[in-house]
Amino acid sequence: MSDVQLVDVLRALADPIRLEIVRHLADGTAHPKTSDLWPFDVQKSTLSHHFKTLRESGLTRTIVNGRQHDIQLRKAELDERFPGLIDSVLRG
Amino acid sequence: MSDVQLVDVLRALADPIRLEIVRHLADGTAHPKTSDLWPFDVQKSTLSHHFKTLRESGLTRTIVNGRQHDIQLRKAELDERFPGLIDSVLRG
Repeated sequence: MSDVQLVDVLRALADPIRLEIVRHLADGTAHPKTSDLWPFDVQKSTLSHHFKTLRESGLTRTIVNGRQHDIQLRKAELDERFPGLIDSVLRG
Repeated sequence: MSDVQLVDVLRALADPIRLEIVRHLADGTAHPKTSDLWPFDVQKSTLSHHFKTLRESGLTRTIVNGRQHDIQLRKAELDERFPGLIDSVLRG
């Protein structure tokens, strides 16, 4: 997490769908990436791209169990690295 | 400020130079836009563009006195609309 840059995190958050994904992940649990579980009217590839952007920015991790790919917000690490940022975004 | 959207604020913040400008404005006072007072190696027009992006996102206001154009962070309003966001960005 120490190599995660604030600008990259802000850029990842600066999109309505990614912001909504982060809000869905706010409970801290891992959520399946399965596209039909997400309430967005976008192509599967578009959703995958958003997931990738979130992971590469440092906001989320991917957890793979067998064939299931889950996405989880790195809440505790983010709170330590950027105190208050995620909470303010979840409230906003 | 009620029409200011979180996504737009995040997008405006998601740039190294604009983030640095916001940090310079953190003291809450109005700063002249005069380009040679800013420590950036960018064209005057580029700096103007960043100032405009910040203003249009709702992050800053412009104050014009005579021929002097100042830029000021809308800190109090932002703190009320997005509690903790600006402080976390200034710390980050």
